[in-house]
Amino acid sequence: MTLLEIIEKKKRKEKLTEEEIHFWIEEMVAGRTLDYQVSALLMAIVLNGMDLEETFYLTDAMLHSGETIDLSAIEGVKVDKHSTGGVGDKVTLILAPLLASFGLKVAKMSGRGLGHTGGTIDKLESIPGYQVELDRDAFVKQVNDIGVAVISQSGNLVPADKKLYALRDVTGTVDSIPLIASSIMSKKIASGSDFIFIDVKVGNGALMKNLEDAKALAHTMIDIGNRFGKKTVCILTNMSEPLGNAIGNAIEVEEAMDCLKGMGPEDVMELIIKIAGFIVSRVENIDLEEAEQQCFKKFNTGAAYQKFEEMVKSQGGDLEKLEVSKRIFSVRSAKAGYITAINTLGLGEIARKIGAGRLTKEDEIHYQVGLLLNHKVGDFIEVNEELVKVFLDNLDVRVNEILECFTIEAEPKEKEPLIYEIIE
Amino acid sequence: MTLLEIIEKKKRKEKLTEEEIHFWIEEMVAGRTLDYQVSALLMAIVLNGMDLEETFYLTDAMLHSGETIDLSAIEGVKVDKHSTGGVGDKVTLILAPLLASFGLKVAKMSGRGLGHTGGTIDKLESIPGYQVELDRDAFVKQVNDIGVAVISQSGNLVPADKKLYALRDVTGTVDSIPLIASSIMSKKIASGSDFIFIDVKVGNGALMKNLEDAKALAHTMIDIGNRFGKKTVCILTNMSEPLGNAIGNAIEVEEAMDCLKGMGPEDVMELIIKIAGFIVSRVENIDLEEAEQQCFKKFNTGAAYQKFEEMVKSQGGDLEKLEVSKRIFSVRSAKAGYITAINTLGLGEIARKIGAGRLTKEDEIHYQVGLLLNHKVGDFIEVNEELVKVFLDNLDVRVNEILECFTIEAEPKEKEPLIYEIIE
Repeated sequence: MTLLEIIEKKKRKEKLTEEEIHFWIEEMVAGRTLDYQVSALLMAIVLNGMDLEETFYLTDAMLHSGETIDLSAIEGVKVDKHSTGGVGDKVTLILAPLLASFGLKVAKMSGRGLGHTGGTIDKLESIPGYQVELDRDAFVKQVNDIGVAVISQSGNLVPADKKLYALRDVTGTVDSIPLIASSIMSKKIASGSDFIFIDVKVGNGALMKNLEDAKALAHTMIDIGNRFGKKTVCILTNMSEPLGNAIGNAIEVEEAMDCLKGMGPEDVMELIIKIAGFIVSRVENIDLEEAEQQCFKKFNTGAAYQKFEEMVKSQGGDLEKLEVSKRIFSVRSAKAGYITAINTLGLGEIARKIGAGRLTKEDEIHYQVGLLLNHKVGDFIEVNEELVKVFLDNLDVRVNEILECFTIEAEPKEKEPLIYEIIE
Repeated sequence: MTLLEIIEKKKRKEKLTEEEIHFWIEEMVAGRTLDYQVSALLMAIVLNGMDLEETFYLTDAMLHSGETIDLSAIEGVKVDKHSTGGVGDKVTLILAPLLASFGLKVAKMSGRGLGHTGGTIDKLESIPGYQVELDRDAFVKQVNDIGVAVISQSGNLVPADKKLYALRDVTGTVDSIPLIASSIMSKKIASGSDFIFIDVKVGNGALMKNLEDAKALAHTMIDIGNRFGKKTVCILTNMSEPLGNAIGNAIEVEEAMDCLKGMGPEDVMELIIKIAGFIVSRVENIDLEEAEQQCFKKFNTGAAYQKFEEMVKSQGGDLEKLEVSKRIFSVRSAKAGYITAINTLGLGEIARKIGAGRLTKEDEIHYQVGLLLNHKVGDFIEVNEELVKVFLDNLDVRVNEILECFTIEAEPKEKEPLIYEIIE
């Protein structure tokens, strides 16, 4: 068997066998493949596809390319949540302590920012002192003690994905449902939880630009999860505008804390209640409406916020020292009208440029910078009214660049729903 | 402009611009591209195609990647002939001197063997003393003096093709009409002749497995030739069995010499008369039948053979010393019946294995080895009758491997035509 034969097969749109897919991944991780052959194979997969079985084999091969996490020392139902990536997505920061306040176990490994989307780990590191690296024993102990820990993904978890992703990023082979599904699911399965909940983002700020592709991705991931015996659920949510008002790191942590007190922006609250309510109703076997009511209670009684404080403290963070930049300027609207669209990808790129994300792997995050949106799609705005507050440090941005991300028209457009569908 | 943007465009099946294609080829020849990006682009082209305009731009960019040959110092109509590659294809050895005997000018640059197909240059080198490298002045002088010279392709002719071909060969991206057409046509245009005649081989021993693809390739090459102001003609011929009886180097030169005396195998003679007749009728503006009659005359009077002798002598070769191996064994049929199919690719691979071709670039050719087919498709053969004579030296071959290349059945099958069509 040679990689060239495997390339030729996929080029002819034939189905690859389990042996062929394992051969590819094993040889690659062992450093015995040539990048120009792997990239040709990736492009053939992007254009000719892979069926569910092939995608399962690929996930399995990637899963076994490195370490897998054994969470059996943690008692109770272990829940994992993943987002395919959006702008202003601080859901994990809120959901993880909320679920823990129900007694569920959240042993969560998260990633850093990628492209124009932020990463949970970067956001948590904006809390001075917060340790994102815990060893296995400390991780398990913290989850057993307080129910939740959010740490950085282990270096040896799914090394095949790291290799493949680095190549996909520079060869135009990112946007493929089998490749995305196997990348996400191999990491989720390797992380050891029982219940996997995935937020599939759809819209101009997401990898999936339309609902049809998002559904196909969801069904693929659910099928793979089932084959591994893991309960997998997907929610399809709108990412044609940023989630919430804050985009950045410290500024998103602040917004998350508002949400944990039940006082966050409407869209974030709606999404959190929907996801947490669904998970709680399934795990506790109670009515959906009842579960959602209990979530509100966890906010109102302070139980959810308290879990967040416990987690941060346990990982060494000091919330008193959390700060956003004092160098603030306002972007004001040049005209009156209704906001009918927001270029989410554009705002994500601007946040990245001012330091909230990285342009190269070596860049350091500027934790205190960010954007705060005063208005979202559907709002009416007056001339000269503040549209966005920008928190800067030494990296600059042009005002017009921000303004151009907002489409303002005389007539309002019907607002798209935030949540399209839950698929299980 | 970046190569990644160009990859993304072709992945989306969009048309590439002239600027984009030139950027790709120029950056690649300058050594500023990454192989894994080029191979991803090649796979996207194989699967999403290129239209005629893009193929023309690619040909043009490749053509300008290196030296082009100026043949203006040669008087008269300069004719070039190319074959897409087959097994036992010794047409150039016969056609070049035959056309020269009509006063046409054949300033021909040929290649070495590639994969399972032999190369004209390797075949000529089996004549002791034959020099395949002439400097420009000697090349032009010989063509002006005797009308014909066949030399090895200049090292700096279309360097982009060398780079691309090396990568295509190992990434499963050979079989693409725009890539094949631009590879062939860039070299033909760079070689400077006025009249380009291309033999497109179709069948199990050729790159084009079916007539439809072969026709598409022919139309693409003719279109490109026309855009460069070169008369381009294609003949579609059957390569589902070897051409002639001889496969090898010295052994093919011997068969070519028989043909030049008018005494070669039927199929080779038919093809030569068809091609030469067509070219002569077009250049001399005479009737096709009349032109074909004149070809026969060139054989019968010895004029064609004499040109071949003149060419060989002028390039230092000594035909007296041409030899095939004395270590001969016979492969005999295990059963009686009609030969209904020959695995041409298989025989080509066997010839390569015994030394007639190269397995790696560094291998040396064994000039005196080869296969001589006693029977072709349609023939009836008795049990124990000789099917193939094998000329070996130190490299061995299994008899069954050769036998398995022949399908022998009780009933004959209708023989496919040798020549399908001439397209101009």
